Amino acid sequence: MAQISDEVKKSALRAAAESLVAYTSRILKANALDVDSAIRKKLSPSLIDRLALNEKRVAGMREAVLEIAGSKDPIGEIVEEFQGQEGLKIKKVRVPLGVIAMIYESRPNVTVESAALCLKAGNSVLLRGGREAIRSNTVLAKIMIDALAAHGIPQDAVQFISQQDRENIYALSRLDHWIDLLIARGSEKMVRDIQSHATVAVLGHGKGVCHVYVDKDADLKMAEEVAFNAKVQRPGVCNAAESLLVHKDSAARFLPSMAERYKSAGVVLHGDARTKKLVPWAKGSSVKTWSTEYLDLAMSVKVVDSLDQAIDHINTYGSGHTDTIVTSNPDAAQKFLKSVDSAAVFSNASTRLHDGGVFGLGAEIGISTQKLHARGTMGVRELTATKYVAEGSGQIRK
Amino acid sequence: MAQISDEVKKSALRAAAESLVAYTSRILKANALDVDSAIRKKLSPSLIDRLALNEKRVAGMREAVLEIAGSKDPIGEIVEEFQGQEGLKIKKVRVPLGVIAMIYESRPNVTVESAALCLKAGNSVLLRGGREAIRSNTVLAKIMIDALAAHGIPQDAVQFISQQDRENIYALSRLDHWIDLLIARGSEKMVRDIQSHATVAVLGHGKGVCHVYVDKDADLKMAEEVAFNAKVQRPGVCNAAESLLVHKDSAARFLPSMAERYKSAGVVLHGDARTKKLVPWAKGSSVKTWSTEYLDLAMSVKVVDSLDQAIDHINTYGSGHTDTIVTSNPDAAQKFLKSVDSAAVFSNASTRLHDGGVFGLGAEIGISTQKLHARGTMGVRELTATKYVAEGSGQIRK
Repeated sequence: MAQISDEVKKSALRAAAESLVAYTSRILKANALDVDSAIRKKLSPSLIDRLALNEKRVAGMREAVLEIAGSKDPIGEIVEEFQGQEGLKIKKVRVPLGVIAMIYESRPNVTVESAALCLKAGNSVLLRGGREAIRSNTVLAKIMIDALAAHGIPQDAVQFISQQDRENIYALSRLDHWIDLLIARGSEKMVRDIQSHATVAVLGHGKGVCHVYVDKDADLKMAEEVAFNAKVQRPGVCNAAESLLVHKDSAARFLPSMAERYKSAGVVLHGDARTKKLVPWAKGSSVKTWSTEYLDLAMSVKVVDSLDQAIDHINTYGSGHTDTIVTSNPDAAQKFLKSVDSAAVFSNASTRLHDGGVFGLGAEIGISTQKLHARGTMGVRELTATKYVAEGSGQIRK
Repeated sequence: MAQISDEVKKSALRAAAESLVAYTSRILKANALDVDSAIRKKLSPSLIDRLALNEKRVAGMREAVLEIAGSKDPIGEIVEEFQGQEGLKIKKVRVPLGVIAMIYESRPNVTVESAALCLKAGNSVLLRGGREAIRSNTVLAKIMIDALAAHGIPQDAVQFISQQDRENIYALSRLDHWIDLLIARGSEKMVRDIQSHATVAVLGHGKGVCHVYVDKDADLKMAEEVAFNAKVQRPGVCNAAESLLVHKDSAARFLPSMAERYKSAGVVLHGDARTKKLVPWAKGSSVKTWSTEYLDLAMSVKVVDSLDQAIDHINTYGSGHTDTIVTSNPDAAQKFLKSVDSAAVFSNASTRLHDGGVFGLGAEIGISTQKLHARGTMGVRELTATKYVAEGSGQIRK
């Protein structure tokens, strides 16, 4: 796999993208069975929404694969180049990770995009999706594998695991001799469960308890736009805000109208005592409120005494995902950006912008809240390793 | 810790370096007790050699700490800088990892160097050394902590764990909420044992089954120097060669004299059938021979039919540490460098040169044979994470 040229990877991925569209009706037929089954099992509407495919969503998969195909090949990139002792010529070169196992839940497009991303980075991938999408994923994986294999990619480079028992995942997670990385993309509970069993290195697509902090010196109109967008634009995703912190000097001018705007969008607020004074209809809060990931039209709201208290609150209750400050004071912004220990820290922008596409880095396989190897949005480049290549002329250690 | 300036880190580390020398007699007194105890317990001479300190070795610790103090501060480095959508200004910035736990065996200098490296990268560190060095490590850790604390570093930034039971390590390895990275530096068995218990991410300082491959088109004089140096210059370390592969067309001209030179240095050879024909005094081999890490004056030797067979052998039996080819044929060199999947691949140079100092990268905390986060020599920079810092002017997600 490490030796396959980018030309071959590109043309195989483009063929797979077209194959998805050609087999749209087969994909939708399998997906309809998954959706029927999910409805019969009374699974949640949001899960069914993530599961359901239509022609537009299949076309979206094609677009995603084409984008990945056309992205810059990371393999062979010279990350650094330097001289060691006695003229030893040393390079740090980007190479594939090797074998990646991908464990995920209900969204069938993850099957397609993970295969494409892993392959573009020269890896083999084992795909193990959720039970509720098994029929869709089986068809999608077969279409990808067949198209890739017809265009020069080994048949086994992408493998789909159809067994659905939990023991199978645990066994997989201990094959550290064979698997170089396990990516777990799902609920916090699922990720932690796998991490506690695994000997393979796990990158968890993390919990997103993201904060918007409205400072003393904020442009309150901008703050309202950012806070509204961060919560409401797509509440079910990890970079949506879950918690609003407001400096006490801004609270009276900001919170009542902000709350009205949230209310009109159907957002339920869970506030501390000072918030409830300004927004009497807000629900109460407990210590659990501050670390809750709603993934829904609900939000925690707290009035804080200072920037320091906001930073401390975020570092204590946040999940290290994405946090933003709205302020017109550059010193306050810099302090926040330096002191909040999260994968991404923003000033005067919505947390929803933490995204590989928005950042201009291309398609992402997830957002990591871990600090090792990859932190924040993970794309093709984060699916690689490096090696040192040193060329000598007889150098030995003295 | 993330906020401490490099000036403070530098002056505190320099004070600690001088403190080590000032307290030399106290260090040597504690060390003599450890060495006595090791002798009474009949521990191996090589372990006692690693354990024993003298004035020169203490002076060496001072040098190492001064070198780390003076090295470039990695924190705050802008790794990348780019624009996202609508003018969002994005930087990827180097930040401390957080809390590092360091588990190691008999060499007391690891206590000093780990503390200095972790601190230079803005981290806190928990040190847990081997039982046989407990008295030396206790004194060394106290000298470091006191000197650092007197010069502006929090008292708790370096902590020494004196409990010696295995359960304590297992418990430590599951504190993933508090510890960001666990570095295990010791035997393969020790590293694997910790990995199988840990939920904290583990970087194992890996087993080194390093190879020297002498190609068909090698300069045989160079090959002899490289192969001799790789085995003999310091046989007890991870980047010493354990296995010599010789192309069949070079074997008759190369092996007999090479073997004589090894023999004169006391190296025991374990050869395959074709080697034994050329070197009758060599011991035999079994399949286990090829993955053995001797860490001693012993070496596996095999005659191979081709470059491809050599590459295949290394990828099958090696440990992915450091492997070298000796060849005058640039195509053969490039094929080897591209196809051998190891942390470092060399042409025409000794495996012993895989070292942070030789590479010009500064002091190392170990050599990683894992692919994630850090591969190969790990220095101050590998003890950091990154975060995305994005500065906006009211951008929201459309």
